Amino acid sequence: MVRTVEWINGKIKLIDQTKLPQSIEFIETDNLDELAEAIKSLRVRGAPAIGVTAALGVAMEANKFNGTNTNDFIDHIEKVCDVLAATRPTAVNLFWALSKMRDILKDNSNDAVDDLKKKIIDLALEIANEDEAINRKIGEYGSSLIESGQTILTHCNAGSLATAYFGTALGVIFTASQQGKKIKVYADETRPLLQGARLTAWELLQENIPVTLITDSMAGYVMVKGKVNMVIVGADRIAANGDVANKIGTYSLAVMAFAHRIPFYVAAPISTIDFDTPDGSYIPIEERSKDEITQIQSVKIAPENVDVFNPAFDVTPNDLVSAIITERGIAEKSYIRSLLNMKNQT
Amino acid sequence: MVRTVEWINGKIKLIDQTKLPQSIEFIETDNLDELAEAIKSLRVRGAPAIGVTAALGVAMEANKFNGTNTNDFIDHIEKVCDVLAATRPTAVNLFWALSKMRDILKDNSNDAVDDLKKKIIDLALEIANEDEAINRKIGEYGSSLIESGQTILTHCNAGSLATAYFGTALGVIFTASQQGKKIKVYADETRPLLQGARLTAWELLQENIPVTLITDSMAGYVMVKGKVNMVIVGADRIAANGDVANKIGTYSLAVMAFAHRIPFYVAAPISTIDFDTPDGSYIPIEERSKDEITQIQSVKIAPENVDVFNPAFDVTPNDLVSAIITERGIAEKSYIRSLLNMKNQT
Repeated sequence: MVRTVEWINGKIKLIDQTKLPQSIEFIETDNLDELAEAIKSLRVRGAPAIGVTAALGVAMEANKFNGTNTNDFIDHIEKVCDVLAATRPTAVNLFWALSKMRDILKDNSNDAVDDLKKKIIDLALEIANEDEAINRKIGEYGSSLIESGQTILTHCNAGSLATAYFGTALGVIFTASQQGKKIKVYADETRPLLQGARLTAWELLQENIPVTLITDSMAGYVMVKGKVNMVIVGADRIAANGDVANKIGTYSLAVMAFAHRIPFYVAAPISTIDFDTPDGSYIPIEERSKDEITQIQSVKIAPENVDVFNPAFDVTPNDLVSAIITERGIAEKSYIRSLLNMKNQT
Repeated sequence: MVRTVEWINGKIKLIDQTKLPQSIEFIETDNLDELAEAIKSLRVRGAPAIGVTAALGVAMEANKFNGTNTNDFIDHIEKVCDVLAATRPTAVNLFWALSKMRDILKDNSNDAVDDLKKKIIDLALEIANEDEAINRKIGEYGSSLIESGQTILTHCNAGSLATAYFGTALGVIFTASQQGKKIKVYADETRPLLQGARLTAWELLQENIPVTLITDSMAGYVMVKGKVNMVIVGADRIAANGDVANKIGTYSLAVMAFAHRIPFYVAAPISTIDFDTPDGSYIPIEERSKDEITQIQSVKIAPENVDVFNPAFDVTPNDLVSAIITERGIAEKSYIRSLLNMKNQT
């Protein structure tokens, strides 16, 4: 399992996920624009990984700051937060991480620059390091839902690559496998950007977990043929009522799982739950470039002049979600109460 | 609208659909192996087009036959039918056309070779010519289900390219448009072979019908957002009870349409109905090459060594089918009776 994002002496090292699995390339940068571009163009993606990258991005800029005026420092870091916040609208972990950074500025606005710098860098590293521990907890809770011999269907990539390390939905699968459970996985290829084919299949093969790749349109067929025991996916944002924004196609899967009486689980850290968003209708859905659909890795597959609709996410209503697996336990309906209980746990 | 398959003085002319829409290329052949390869590799595809191509393929071989011995001729044509029957297992129009050819041999086994040749060529041309008239009838019946202002979602390609000319599901859409109804279409791209992106989008743009291309995983999202009034698809084989085999992903669409109370229509000629197949469980489902999923037009998009499941079709149970539109009218439940009534119409 590779480390998705790392802090190396003031620089950020990322595996370039747009190049996988054909080529394993890393980006090492201390340039904010380059980092923002990496998030926008999905070189780093997955809600928890974006959150960690944003936190480290703020630390990177704090570390580079020359000057002793605290107000100048705060102004600069606020601008950095604005740049990072503008990269992607749906994954809430981005805003969660930036808001933690802004809280530091607010709570310590009389500190000397060097003290503030240290607090920001320490918090960013803490967020990055915590991520793996959180995922391992999610993995343990989630694995309790899996029996040996079962087959799990997943969509997009909620693996180690979607986090700093270990993964959410795939973290559950890795944990079950490490506990000796014999499991199999169907991976939806996940058009348009093929995170299932490129990333999930690659991660599972590396861990020697049997994986069968299918197109997104085959999920219903494998369900009706009785080949799937459960669906586990990640999330980009979960509303306070348990509505789940995740990669486009997740909603269809949830409808289909419901129709076939197959449990539909969402695995995500508490930081993915947006308690300020009452339900899924308030979650902004990013629409991305037409080229993602009319081309596949630069090969044209559609007429030039065709109209395209390309929402990157959809919202699955809470009544189609069997449970939400977090690092503090497994939330069930009614989610408003169960998720809030988890938030308030210490 | 181009003519998909034509008889030109003993040769068969096909538009090579694997090259569309980037390049418009035709194949002209009187070679049986080349024709069989064209069917296998989907240069010509779509159940009615395959049926017409098979009929013309038999005529092509009859036309080339040198000899005067009727038994030799019959033996040769039987072998030709075997070669064509082995190309693809699911589309029943192939077997329907070949069985019509075999009936000619059986019913006229005392004819002179030249008389038999003529009967075979005449029948093949009749099947080819009838196809457009059948599709125009399907179009008229189907259009009665569409109101101006409505939006239709379709999957794969059941257009002119899937028939000799005019199309089944798209024939309905073309007819509604020609009648002055303002309609819009969402086209599923239809992985793995992208017939929606490459063929359906291209055909609709040529006829100036507004079309929006989406990935297959977005169909549920456009439905839940209220953007779609109905689904219309074609069929590769319909069982006597109305179960519908069609391009993989059709079943998922039907489940989703049912969940969103959106009518789900199937448009197909009577020749697509297999009255000898009691229900969908008896329909053989073709599994195709792994490369169709791990590569897109030769670009590798998945790890080399990943397992793949690649069924080309799925079966939609009759209870999810709102109506079946044929050239003899609109069949509704119970399909066993309504389809049989259509068969027995003269």
